[in-house]
Amino acid sequence: MSTTIPIGVLGASGYTGADLVRLAIAHPAMKIAALTANTYAGRTMAEVFPHLGFVELPCLTTIEDADWGAVAAVFCGLPHGTTQEIARAVLARHPEVKFIDMSADFRLRDPATYAAWYGHPHQAPELQAEAVYGLTEHYRAAIRGGRLVACPGCYPTAALMALVPIVAAGAIDADDIIIDAKSGVSGAGRGLKLNTLFSEAGEGLSPYSVGNHRHAPEIEQEVSRVAGHGVTVNFTPHLIPMSRGELVTCYVRLAGVTVDGLRHILATAYRDETFIHVAPAGTLPQTQNVRGSNYVQIGVVADRIPGRAIVIAVLDNLVKGSAGQAIQNFNLMFGLAETTGLTQQPLFP
Amino acid sequence: MSTTIPIGVLGASGYTGADLVRLAIAHPAMKIAALTANTYAGRTMAEVFPHLGFVELPCLTTIEDADWGAVAAVFCGLPHGTTQEIARAVLARHPEVKFIDMSADFRLRDPATYAAWYGHPHQAPELQAEAVYGLTEHYRAAIRGGRLVACPGCYPTAALMALVPIVAAGAIDADDIIIDAKSGVSGAGRGLKLNTLFSEAGEGLSPYSVGNHRHAPEIEQEVSRVAGHGVTVNFTPHLIPMSRGELVTCYVRLAGVTVDGLRHILATAYRDETFIHVAPAGTLPQTQNVRGSNYVQIGVVADRIPGRAIVIAVLDNLVKGSAGQAIQNFNLMFGLAETTGLTQQPLFP
Amino acid sequence: MSTTIPIGVLGASGYTGADLVRLAIAHPAMKIAALTANTYAGRTMAEVFPHLGFVELPCLTTIEDADWGAVAAVFCGLPHGTTQEIARAVLARHPEVKFIDMSADFRLRDPATYAAWYGHPHQAPELQAEAVYGLTEHYRAAIRGGRLVACPGCYPTAALMALVPIVAAGAIDADDIIIDAKSGVSGAGRGLKLNTLFSEAGEGLSPYSVGNHRHAPEIEQEVSRVAGHGVTVNFTPHLIPMSRGELVTCYVRLAGVTVDGLRHILATAYRDETFIHVAPAGTLPQTQNVRGSNYVQIGVVADRIPGRAIVIAVLDNLVKGSAGQAIQNFNLMFGLAETTGLTQQPLFP
Amino acid sequence: MSTTIPIGVLGASGYTGADLVRLAIAHPAMKIAALTANTYAGRTMAEVFPHLGFVELPCLTTIEDADWGAVAAVFCGLPHGTTQEIARAVLARHPEVKFIDMSADFRLRDPATYAAWYGHPHQAPELQAEAVYGLTEHYRAAIRGGRLVACPGCYPTAALMALVPIVAAGAIDADDIIIDAKSGVSGAGRGLKLNTLFSEAGEGLSPYSVGNHRHAPEIEQEVSRVAGHGVTVNFTPHLIPMSRGELVTCYVRLAGVTVDGLRHILATAYRDETFIHVAPAGTLPQTQNVRGSNYVQIGVVADRIPGRAIVIAVLDNLVKGSAGQAIQNFNLMFGLAETTGLTQQPLFP
Repeated sequence: MSTTIPIGVLGASGYTGADLVRLAIAHPAMKIAALTANTYAGRTMAEVFPHLGFVELPCLTTIEDADWGAVAAVFCGLPHGTTQEIARAVLARHPEVKFIDMSADFRLRDPATYAAWYGHPHQAPELQAEAVYGLTEHYRAAIRGGRLVACPGCYPTAALMALVPIVAAGAIDADDIIIDAKSGVSGAGRGLKLNTLFSEAGEGLSPYSVGNHRHAPEIEQEVSRVAGHGVTVNFTPHLIPMSRGELVTCYVRLAGVTVDGLRHILATAYRDETFIHVAPAGTLPQTQNVRGSNYVQIGVVADRIPGRAIVIAVLDNLVKGSAGQAIQNFNLMFGLAETTGLTQQPLFP
Repeated sequence: MSTTIPIGVLGASGYTGADLVRLAIAHPAMKIAALTANTYAGRTMAEVFPHLGFVELPCLTTIEDADWGAVAAVFCGLPHGTTQEIARAVLARHPEVKFIDMSADFRLRDPATYAAWYGHPHQAPELQAEAVYGLTEHYRAAIRGGRLVACPGCYPTAALMALVPIVAAGAIDADDIIIDAKSGVSGAGRGLKLNTLFSEAGEGLSPYSVGNHRHAPEIEQEVSRVAGHGVTVNFTPHLIPMSRGELVTCYVRLAGVTVDGLRHILATAYRDETFIHVAPAGTLPQTQNVRGSNYVQIGVVADRIPGRAIVIAVLDNLVKGSAGQAIQNFNLMFGLAETTGLTQQPLFP
Repeated sequence: MSTTIPIGVLGASGYTGADLVRLAIAHPAMKIAALTANTYAGRTMAEVFPHLGFVELPCLTTIEDADWGAVAAVFCGLPHGTTQEIARAVLARHPEVKFIDMSADFRLRDPATYAAWYGHPHQAPELQAEAVYGLTEHYRAAIRGGRLVACPGCYPTAALMALVPIVAAGAIDADDIIIDAKSGVSGAGRGLKLNTLFSEAGEGLSPYSVGNHRHAPEIEQEVSRVAGHGVTVNFTPHLIPMSRGELVTCYVRLAGVTVDGLRHILATAYRDETFIHVAPAGTLPQTQNVRGSNYVQIGVVADRIPGRAIVIAVLDNLVKGSAGQAIQNFNLMFGLAETTGLTQQPLFP
Repeated sequence: MSTTIPIGVLGASGYTGADLVRLAIAHPAMKIAALTANTYAGRTMAEVFPHLGFVELPCLTTIEDADWGAVAAVFCGLPHGTTQEIARAVLARHPEVKFIDMSADFRLRDPATYAAWYGHPHQAPELQAEAVYGLTEHYRAAIRGGRLVACPGCYPTAALMALVPIVAAGAIDADDIIIDAKSGVSGAGRGLKLNTLFSEAGEGLSPYSVGNHRHAPEIEQEVSRVAGHGVTVNFTPHLIPMSRGELVTCYVRLAGVTVDGLRHILATAYRDETFIHVAPAGTLPQTQNVRGSNYVQIGVVADRIPGRAIVIAVLDNLVKGSAGQAIQNFNLMFGLAETTGLTQQPLFP
C-alpha cells in the first residue's frame, strides 16, 4: 500500500493497548509512530510485552513526550477517568487528529448518567457531546465522519450485537431482558488485583459486580435508543478461568415472533457484515470459535418456557470487544476497506 | 468406631465412583468391600485412578463377580440407563441392601416423563415408584426410611437448594424462573468425548444442551411439587474450563417480598443445616469456596430490574452434587450423624 | 498477488491440518483447493472446526475423491504410518506435485531406525531416501530444490534450533545432552485419549513416554550429523496444562567456551533469521511469547555447576513446530519470500 | 480425642497459612487458638479466605495482639526475613512453645550461606543454630526432640526425597545432578505480582530464577551432608499453569548400580513410610496423583544415555511441601501418631 498512516497509542502497557499494537503491526496502512505508557517510559515494548519483541517498535514514552502532531490518529487504552482530560489536551492542540478511544470515558452520552456511575462530573463535556459511539455495524455513518469515537465496552459490544436488531424490530419485550455475561480474565486488565491472580481465578467461577457493573448503563443507553423508551436491563457478569473470550446469554421474551423469526431478523440485519455471523439453527456459539479474531458469532435458541428465547453472542474481548473494533472504526474514518488488517482467522486450539 | 458398614461401589471407574471411594476412605464407619467396573475388571484402583493408589482397596471386579450379599449398601455410579436393571437384580436377591444411586435412573417419578426424556420405557417401574429423591435437606425423613435413594443430579441439587424454599414460600413467580447454569468439565464424566478434550474445552466457554438437558425435567419435577402446579423452567447449561465446580445463576421475579426478604427465607430454611450456607448481603458465592467439599453456598442479589432478584448457588458437582450427597444420605439411612465423613474443608487454591 | 498456488491438505480434521488451513487463509499466494478427512468426508470445515467457519472453504472429501492433479502442493497432516503409501500414490500419479509432510513418516533417514521405532518396515523406502528434512533454517538449499519435504516434529524443531549450531561448532559435549521437554496438550492431537481429557490433563503435570518417545531418534539423527558421530541424547517430555506451546530446557556441558560464547554462537548463527531470536543475557524465553506465531526464542543461562550451561528454546508446536514451518518450506519451494503469510505476531494474553 | 493442643498461626493470610488452617480444622488433636495477619487484623478468615468460612475460627489479629502464652505450638507462614525476629521474640517470652516454621528463615544452617543468599546477616543466629531441619522422614529423631523446626521448602522436599537415599548410598555421582523443577503458581504466594496474574501465567510455561533460586543452596546443604562433601547442583525451576503441584525431574549419573538397583534403594528407604511411595517400574508420577494430600510419589526411569537415570518426584507444594509436613512434624513433637490429621486422600480430578 502506497500510503501509511502514522498512529499513536496512549496506554500501550495494558492488554488493550498491546492488542492494538499486535493488530497495527499487521495492518498494511498503519505505521506505529508513538507508544506511551507513563510508568514504563524509556522501556522497549519487548521489556513490557515480550511477545511484541520480534519486530521494531518505537520505545515507550510519557504522554507528554509523544509528538501528537506527527500522528494522524490516536488510539487510547488508558484506564477510564484519565482519558477525558488527555483527549481534550491532545485535541485542543491538534484538532485534526482522529481520537479513537478504547476507554470508558466517552461512551455514556448523558452527563448525569456518567456522573452517577463514575462518581464525578465529566471533565470534558463538550467532547462527550461530540463523541460518536463506536459500535461499528450500528453507527457506521457517524463514525465515518467522526473525530472522536468512543469504542464500546466488550460486554456492550457482545450484548448489543445480539439485542439491537431485535429490539429495534420490536421483536422482543425490551423491558424483560436478562443478560447473563461471562468473561475471560484479561477483561480485568493487567493491573495487580487479588481476584485475577492465577491461583484465585483458576479452577473456579465467580460472579462479580452484580447489579453495579458500569457496562449496564452503556447497554441500557443503546437498547433504550432503539426501544424508543428508557430501558433497564439485567446484566450479571461472571469471571471465567480463561484469558480471552466473552459470551453473553440473553434471555428475552418474544413479542409476536417465533424463535426462527427472531433468528431471521438477526441474520437479515447482519447479512452483509463480514464480522457478524448468525449461526444456523442448531449451532451454538462458543468463545473458542472467535479467539484472537474480530468476529462475533450469534446463536438463537428456543427457551423451554413458551414465548421466550435465548440469544447467545460471543467475541474476543480484546479484539472485537476493544482493539479490533477500534481498528475497524479507524478504517472507516480513513476511508479504507473496513476489514483492512482484521482478517486474521481465530486461533484454535 | 466399633462398627463398620461394608459397602460396594458399582461403576468405580467413573469420576463419581472415584470421588465416592475418596470420601469412603475417610469415612470412619465405612469399609469398602467391593468395587466394580466391568471394563477394568481385574485391575487395581491404582491403575485406573492413580490418586487412589496410596491405600489398600479391593481390586475391581465385574458386577457379576461382586458379592452383594456381603455389603450393607451399594453406591451406584453407572451411566444412566444401565442402573435400573442392575438395581432390580441386586435388590431382588438382596432385598435388605440399601441402594444409593448416583445415576439418573430413578430421579424422575413420572414414567411418561422418564420415557420422553430417556427414549425408552423404564425397565424397573416398581423401583422407580419406590425410589426416594435424595435431596437430603428436603427429603430427610423419607431418605431415613428408604431403601432405594435416587441422588439428584448436580445441577438440580444446586438449583433446588436455591429455589425450593422460595417457591414453597410463594416468594417468587414459579412460572418465570431462568436458570443460567455453569459447570466444570468433570460433570461430563470420564468417557472420551471430543468436547471434553483439554484443547477443546480449555480457554473457552460453551453453552450446551440448551433447551434439552435432562436435568431440566428433574428441576421442574421438584419445583412443581412445591409450587403446587406444573412448572416449566429455563435451564441453560454452559461448560466452563475448570474440572470441578458448578454455579447456577437463577433469575427470579419477586412475588411480594423484598430481596432481603428473599434472603431471609433462605437463611431461615437452612439455619440449622451444616452444609447449606446462605451468604450475607454483599457476599457473592464462587465455586472456589466449596471445591472438594460438601458445602453449598447461596447468595441473593437485587436485580436492576425492579421486582426481580438473582439467586446464586455453588457446589462441587462431584461432592454435594453427587458422591458427597450420596454419603450424606447413607449416613441418614444407617442412623449415623449426618455429617460423618463429610467435614473435609474446601481445597483452595 | 497476481499468482495464486492451489494447495491441498491431507488430514484437515486434525489440529495440524486446521492450523495449516488457518495460516493458508492468510497466505496471499495460496488458494485452498482440496481438503480431505476421510471420517468427515462431505462435511464442511465449519462443522469440524467452527473457528474456520467464517470464510469460504472447500468441503471435506475423502483422499480418493480429491483431485490431486489440480493442486501444486500437498500438505499432509495425517497420522504417522498412513502417509507413506498415500504419498507414494499421489506422487506416482502426479510427479510434479510438491509434497510437504507434517507427519513423522519421512523424518528418519535410516530405514533400520525407522523400522525399529515404528515397528514395521517403511512402505516407501525410495521416497524416504528422497525426502528432505524440513528444518528450514538448517536445510534451506535442499528444501528449495526438494519435491518431498519431511517437516520435523515439534520437539525436534525446538531442540535442534537450540543444539545444532553449538554442536556443529564443537562448543558442547554432544554425548552429554539432556533435553527436558514440556509441551501443551494440542501436541497429542485431536484423537480421543484419556490422558488428554480436560479433567485429566488440567491442573496437573505429567512426564510421559520417558525414554521411548519417537522424537528422540529424530533429534539424535540431526545432532549426530553435525557432531560427526553417533549421539544418544536424553529426551524427557512432560505434558503441561496448556493447549499450545513447547519449551525445551537443554542441559549441556561446555567444551572450551563460556556461556556468553555459547550465546554468541547461537546469535551469530541466527543473525539474519526472521523467525529465530536469541534472547539477550538475562532474558528467559517463555511459551507465551510465541503463541500462534512462527517464532522461536532461545535463551542461554549459566548453570551453577561449573562448565555447564542451560539452553532454553520455545515455539508454538502447531506453527513453527508444524504448520508454520511447513508453509515456510512451501515458500522456499515456490520461490516466494520465506516469510510470506507468516508474519502474524504472537497472541498474548 | 480427650486432649486438644492449642495452636497459633503466624501469617494466616497467605496460601501456606490457609492450608495449615484447612488441615488443622481436620486434625483431631488441634485447636486453633490464634490467627494473625497484620494487614487483615480484625477481619474474619471468611473475609480473607471464603473457603474457610464454613466453620468457626478466631478472628485475625496482629502478631502483637495474639496471646502466645495460650498456645503450645506456633506455625509460621510469614514471608522469609520477617520470621527470625518474631521467632526470637516469641521464644524469648515463651520458651516452652514449639515453633514450627514454614518460612525460609531457619533452613540454611551456615550463617555465611544465609547471608549470601538473603542479602543480610541472620538476625537470630542462636536460633538458626538450634533449628532442626524438618524433612520429616530424614530428621525424625531430631524433630521429635526439637523446639524450633525449619520446615523445608517445597522444591527441596521433593528433590531431597528423591536424592537423599541414593546419594547416601553412593549410588549416583553427587557432582552431576540436574534438577529440572516445575511448580504450580500457588508456590509464588498470594502477593500481587505481574507474572502470577491469570492472564500472564495461564496457557504458558516459563522458566524463572534459573541459577539463582534460593532453594538451590538448601538442596545443596542436604545433598552435601549425605554426600560427605560440598556439592553444587543444577536447579532450574519452571512456572506451570496450575495452582498446586510440583514435580522434579532429576537427571543423575549412576555409580555402579542399575536403574532397578536405584529404585530398590529408594523403595527400601521408604518401605515403612506412609507418605512416601516409590512407584513400580513402568509407572510415572504425576502431580494429579497427590493434589491436596501429604503424599510424595517417586518414580525411577532409565535414561537412553547409558549409565544415567531419571528420578521423578511429585508432591503438593502446599501440603507435603509446606503445611502438611509442618503438621507431620507437629505430630512428632507432641508424641502423636505421625499421620494424625493427614490421611486425607488426593483430590482428583
